[in-house]
Amino acid sequence: MSQIQFQPRTSVEQVEESAEFAPKFGPDGLMPCITADAASGDVLMLGWMNDEALRLTIETGEAHYFSRARQVLWHKGATSGLVQKVIEARIDDDQDAIWLRVETAGSRASCHVGYRSCFYRAIPIGGDAGMSLVFTEDQKTFDPVKVYGDVPNPTQL
Amino acid sequence: MSQIQFQPRTSVEQVEESAEFAPKFGPDGLMPCITADAASGDVLMLGWMNDEALRLTIETGEAHYFSRARQVLWHKGATSGLVQKVIEARIDDDQDAIWLRVETAGSRASCHVGYRSCFYRAIPIGGDAGMSLVFTEDQKTFDPVKVYGDVPNPTQL
Repeated sequence: MSQIQFQPRTSVEQVEESAEFAPKFGPDGLMPCITADAASGDVLMLGWMNDEALRLTIETGEAHYFSRARQVLWHKGATSGLVQKVIEARIDDDQDAIWLRVETAGSRASCHVGYRSCFYRAIPIGGDAGMSLVFTEDQKTFDPVKVYGDVPNPTQL
Repeated sequence: MSQIQFQPRTSVEQVEESAEFAPKFGPDGLMPCITADAASGDVLMLGWMNDEALRLTIETGEAHYFSRARQVLWHKGATSGLVQKVIEARIDDDQDAIWLRVETAGSRASCHVGYRSCFYRAIPIGGDAGMSLVFTEDQKTFDPVKVYGDVPNPTQL
């Protein structure tokens, strides 16, 4: 049984100004989780956590998510070996989003496409608005076919 | 009329591996946006964008969001003066999340509670799991009552 008590949400002041942990999940039971590299600060991925994933992340110190594509609890790195060790976990003002700072094992990649970060393309802005995306990582850190084999690609159209 | 063309999503390869901008919004028409400080890399907030907010952010180079609490387009800083100038915008592998690196005007705060970042509390992990949240910012950068007056607090229970 989990040792973590999520508190009921009783007031705006409690949620914003107190040290009580009263997380709020969305209508689908999920909360967005921003995962960043602890050393560089770069954002690696935006994942989703249900109640169980959040508890396991906190208790084990390794990032767990809920896979929306596969609709299952997902211990990041269980297939690829690229486990994310949590250096720090934070909650936001209204306690409906998580920010993890992690160290990633192995090749240090966190993206199933093979790049270090899932955010490997820049969107041109301002005067360049409307132009094509610009790749910011020039090579993959691993071969997804070798690592994942025939596991279905999680990207949905 | 917007100068930006969002492309139709035609294949996993197109979405993940091409330079075509084919963003995907959720069933509620919204996409999560991670906003980080361009200098430190620290995450400031997790916001939400609808189609219009994303277009305006890209075209103007200033962060726009969709306020879920107020259900309106929200030009960040319009009330507080704390405008977020976009230094870089990125899209993730399956093109359903945005990462902005910004410079914030004025007091450089991005949180309506008055702190610099919305993520001003750490969640104890591992052996400390279950303990109270720990404040990571020791003072507010502005007085929310002076800045926002009687604008309703966006936090929802």
